[in-house]
Amino acid sequence: MNAPVNPTVIPVGEVPTGPIPGSRKIHVPGVLYPELRVPFREVCVHESAGEPPVTIYDPSGPYTDPDATIDLQQGLPRAREAWVRARGDVEEISARQIRPEDNGRVSDALRVPEFPTHRPVLRATGGGAVTQLDYARRGIITAEMEYVAIRENLRREMIREQIRDGESFGAEIPEVVTPEFVRDEIARGRAIIPANINHGELEPMAIGRNFLVKINANIGNSAVTSSVGEEVEKMVWAIRWGADNVMDLSTGRNIHNIREWIVRNSPVPIGTVPIYQALEKVGGIAEDLTWEVYRDTLIEQAEQGVDYFTIHAGVRLPYIPLTAKRVTGIVSRGGSIMAKWCLAHHKESFLYERFDEICDIMRAYDVSFSLGDGLRPGSIADANDAAQFAELETLGELTHRAWAKGCQVMIEGPGHVPMHKIKANMDKQLKVCGEAPFYTLGPLTTDIAPGYDHITSAIGAAMIGWFGTAMLCYVTPKEHLGLPDRNDVKQGVIAYKIAAHAADLAKGHPAARAWDDALSRARFEFRWEDQFNLGLDPETAREYHDETLPKEAHKTAHFCSMCGPKFCSMKISQEIRDAAKGQNDVAQAGMAEMSEKFKATGGEIYVPTKA
Amino acid sequence: MNAPVNPTVIPVGEVPTGPIPGSRKIHVPGVLYPELRVPFREVCVHESAGEPPVTIYDPSGPYTDPDATIDLQQGLPRAREAWVRARGDVEEISARQIRPEDNGRVSDALRVPEFPTHRPVLRATGGGAVTQLDYARRGIITAEMEYVAIRENLRREMIREQIRDGESFGAEIPEVVTPEFVRDEIARGRAIIPANINHGELEPMAIGRNFLVKINANIGNSAVTSSVGEEVEKMVWAIRWGADNVMDLSTGRNIHNIREWIVRNSPVPIGTVPIYQALEKVGGIAEDLTWEVYRDTLIEQAEQGVDYFTIHAGVRLPYIPLTAKRVTGIVSRGGSIMAKWCLAHHKESFLYERFDEICDIMRAYDVSFSLGDGLRPGSIADANDAAQFAELETLGELTHRAWAKGCQVMIEGPGHVPMHKIKANMDKQLKVCGEAPFYTLGPLTTDIAPGYDHITSAIGAAMIGWFGTAMLCYVTPKEHLGLPDRNDVKQGVIAYKIAAHAADLAKGHPAARAWDDALSRARFEFRWEDQFNLGLDPETAREYHDETLPKEAHKTAHFCSMCGPKFCSMKISQEIRDAAKGQNDVAQAGMAEMSEKFKATGGEIYVPTKA
Repeated sequence: MNAPVNPTVIPVGEVPTGPIPGSRKIHVPGVLYPELRVPFREVCVHESAGEPPVTIYDPSGPYTDPDATIDLQQGLPRAREAWVRARGDVEEISARQIRPEDNGRVSDALRVPEFPTHRPVLRATGGGAVTQLDYARRGIITAEMEYVAIRENLRREMIREQIRDGESFGAEIPEVVTPEFVRDEIARGRAIIPANINHGELEPMAIGRNFLVKINANIGNSAVTSSVGEEVEKMVWAIRWGADNVMDLSTGRNIHNIREWIVRNSPVPIGTVPIYQALEKVGGIAEDLTWEVYRDTLIEQAEQGVDYFTIHAGVRLPYIPLTAKRVTGIVSRGGSIMAKWCLAHHKESFLYERFDEICDIMRAYDVSFSLGDGLRPGSIADANDAAQFAELETLGELTHRAWAKGCQVMIEGPGHVPMHKIKANMDKQLKVCGEAPFYTLGPLTTDIAPGYDHITSAIGAAMIGWFGTAMLCYVTPKEHLGLPDRNDVKQGVIAYKIAAHAADLAKGHPAARAWDDALSRARFEFRWEDQFNLGLDPETAREYHDETLPKEAHKTAHFCSMCGPKFCSMKISQEIRDAAKGQNDVAQAGMAEMSEKFKATGGEIYVPTKA
Repeated sequence: MNAPVNPTVIPVGEVPTGPIPGSRKIHVPGVLYPELRVPFREVCVHESAGEPPVTIYDPSGPYTDPDATIDLQQGLPRAREAWVRARGDVEEISARQIRPEDNGRVSDALRVPEFPTHRPVLRATGGGAVTQLDYARRGIITAEMEYVAIRENLRREMIREQIRDGESFGAEIPEVVTPEFVRDEIARGRAIIPANINHGELEPMAIGRNFLVKINANIGNSAVTSSVGEEVEKMVWAIRWGADNVMDLSTGRNIHNIREWIVRNSPVPIGTVPIYQALEKVGGIAEDLTWEVYRDTLIEQAEQGVDYFTIHAGVRLPYIPLTAKRVTGIVSRGGSIMAKWCLAHHKESFLYERFDEICDIMRAYDVSFSLGDGLRPGSIADANDAAQFAELETLGELTHRAWAKGCQVMIEGPGHVPMHKIKANMDKQLKVCGEAPFYTLGPLTTDIAPGYDHITSAIGAAMIGWFGTAMLCYVTPKEHLGLPDRNDVKQGVIAYKIAAHAADLAKGHPAARAWDDALSRARFEFRWEDQFNLGLDPETAREYHDETLPKEAHKTAHFCSMCGPKFCSMKISQEIRDAAKGQNDVAQAGMAEMSEKFKATGGEIYVPTKA
């Protein structure tokens, strides 16, 4: 199995590195844990503005740090392993041996090489729980919790003015995120830090509705196409543009080896759907799945360092007939596999029956549950139906069972939902799942736009994020049509960064508005470079501008191509502002008073005081 | 001025023609007016489905009709001129002469040729009102009203099942749209049919919250770039993908001649902002604008057949100081021009003061008002502020004044608004403007994504469309950065068709769901060709699919590239559905009963009856 590494399979140096244009990487140390180096992306605006830099949440890892050395064969530095070992509750174990079925019995010729650098495998000692939830309940603030607290604050002490005029629908976002606040949110189950003790490369992050809304990007090869090099590149590319989590949804051959390359090179939590690999191990025949094969797969992946598992334990036998009259049946792959198993055997799902045993594995590595919505609607017609909500109630039951075992939990949600049915999903999830974080795919708000489902779903994602969803799973333009390529991944990530930030703004997140305002001031003051650099995608913004006005001089021009030099509304506004100086008393008098004066003059126009 | 037409300026035959793949053009005749030919796009699904065709609203005009002859030099057929003349209340007048300033005093070398085909200019006789509103009040159902009624119905008598589970926020969408319903909506001012009597090429359409949500695309050259050929092509391209209205926002030279080419070749209503041309006539100096120049421009454009004018008569002098402390001041071009004029002269806006005279011009040609939101917010920071809402109240006052003169009115709205402040805009507009149709630009829900504002704004557009906005003005990816090209126009149109349809679905429009369901059934049954053809953009959907699975055989394959042949959830679902046949009693028993049985067995799993 120790095939030599083929550099054409992992094209080292081809992943995108270096900072995003106009940004620089900075690190903030911890206080409780001074060794922490919490990363941010900082955008300094032109000195003429006299403004502090803008601090942007940065999940891109060392790849955007010009001081970091990237070696994909080596993997990222494993700073976190020391934090885990320092807690004194884990032991090195002899790793499970890789078997031919782990990689789908791939032939030697097609086998992806094993990841070349070995590392110890850790597990909780004595059947204990080494979860962030268990520490939080015991009152322990872990390094991961302090890391997250610093990260969520976005250096908000530097923000000139925190503006909070949102509608939070019951979310309780604090003025400042303290490590103790993080601990308390984790302890209550309202947030999770997906952080397998074997993922030493991880830069911890939190998922919960009192934190910034996060996004997940899906990657993965399929039985039809794509290679390990492409998948590692897609992961790096996705986090470069802002993906907070990545799910490896690989199917087909080489699943084990590809995943190892991804986890070892990923600073963000990696999620998987273990049933995909389990199914490969039994030759793709759902009826042949067993608890033993599934259990083996959980342990295999837990040892690799996967941070959360989608587990479709809510697809119970009695719910399956509820899907028979649907327009699009069961569209979740995991859900349909389990449904088929249940029907074939006329038995309750082994995921449901063995749930406590699953918990015992999860807590030994701190793999978080992502309780899968195997019965999510796959079309507008099927939204919010009996099958979907029956499963959601079971997910609520399982949440409490997992919590009892000390496991971290989030809940997956739909899917395809028209706008008027979105809020009911959030409300029901909060109620039945005890405020465990909700993690939704979109939802897509119409079915009529194949090729544009990043947009149909960004609409639903923004809304459900506002209502309280903690993480939004992206959808790319290729949804329903094909496997996303690099550009599709970027399009999906940017659409979801928009949805997540729009949600943060609407919730009234204290640090959200500062970003919009900095960009808008740059726009108003014709600081073109600042406007590009503060955008989610500076490269595209600059390119679009330059298509019409390519010259460097136009980057400082006080006009743009829409209006031309004589006709700019922003320019005229600035003249108005200048003219209004000295009339501040008028401006401050407010509308009501001016309206009064206006009426008092008998309908004559109001004449402003001359400057 | 009668320069010979240069075929390189108007590249005849280069506009896109022919049907959208998989669609065919059909026409439905009128009953009251049998000569009407109301166009639809019909998509026939594969015969294996045993389903009726899907009827799609079609604003694309004769360009998608393979039986039509397109001659840009001739313009489109003017069927509507006969309807107008048949009413017996208009007269042919001698047209206003074109003057050098109408085209920005362009040199001979740069002048766009005049449109070569002449047509009579019509005006109401004896100062009467020839507006759809005036006819409606008098109880007259015009040809335009019957046309719109047929158009809005989407042949809904052919829909198998009308599903209405939306939340309409007070909209009153009928089961079937009758000509009388249209008349009544117009008479109440809740809808308009923008239809200048000089736009004989028009295929009439309605804007109102009890009709389908419409979208507008902006085109137009600028002082910096673009030609008449490009603008006509953009118009045809925009309506091909579904734009219901087009605004010509040209500035700079050749404004008059470019507009004539556009109107003569446009089957959709054309809107303009007359102050742009008026400003060109006074050399770009806002202070030099006069009522006389503006009035002359209104008449010039009304004679050409422009269907609605954006008129920023709500930018009143006392409101201007309210913008001085904004982050982005006044961002409306028309608003800033008027603000500058008001400040320079220390006078109330002549648009406000001369409003009744403007109405007299509008009613003589049936040009609809689009009361401009000159003080709309240009950033998240400025949303819903005192300046914006002061202007909106004035627009409400002007609405009632225009109605008193028999003029049709819609109201323009913002702009940049975070999600939690969107609904307040709609509620206030409905209240102060007496339910006159709202026409909003987006709104953009965050400022941080230059290059992706079609997405930041599609989110807000879908929401405000749901809440009751009647027409959504598109935003392209180039917003804030440059002039949209052909591809940007398409991206903007598709994003807004998504927003408008998502809104129709959420409002519970009786004919909306049929489209989604037909596509979802095609998806579930692996009818790939049907899925492409039913999409908003069949070309892109097919192209994305073929990137991964190019072979023709895959168009009938019962799998796709995401999962591959062994692993498809839809395939498994169909197997489940087959297995569930004979268990229909179980499926129909509903969740509650099954849950009961489940509990009654003491927690044992529920075993379905064998088939």
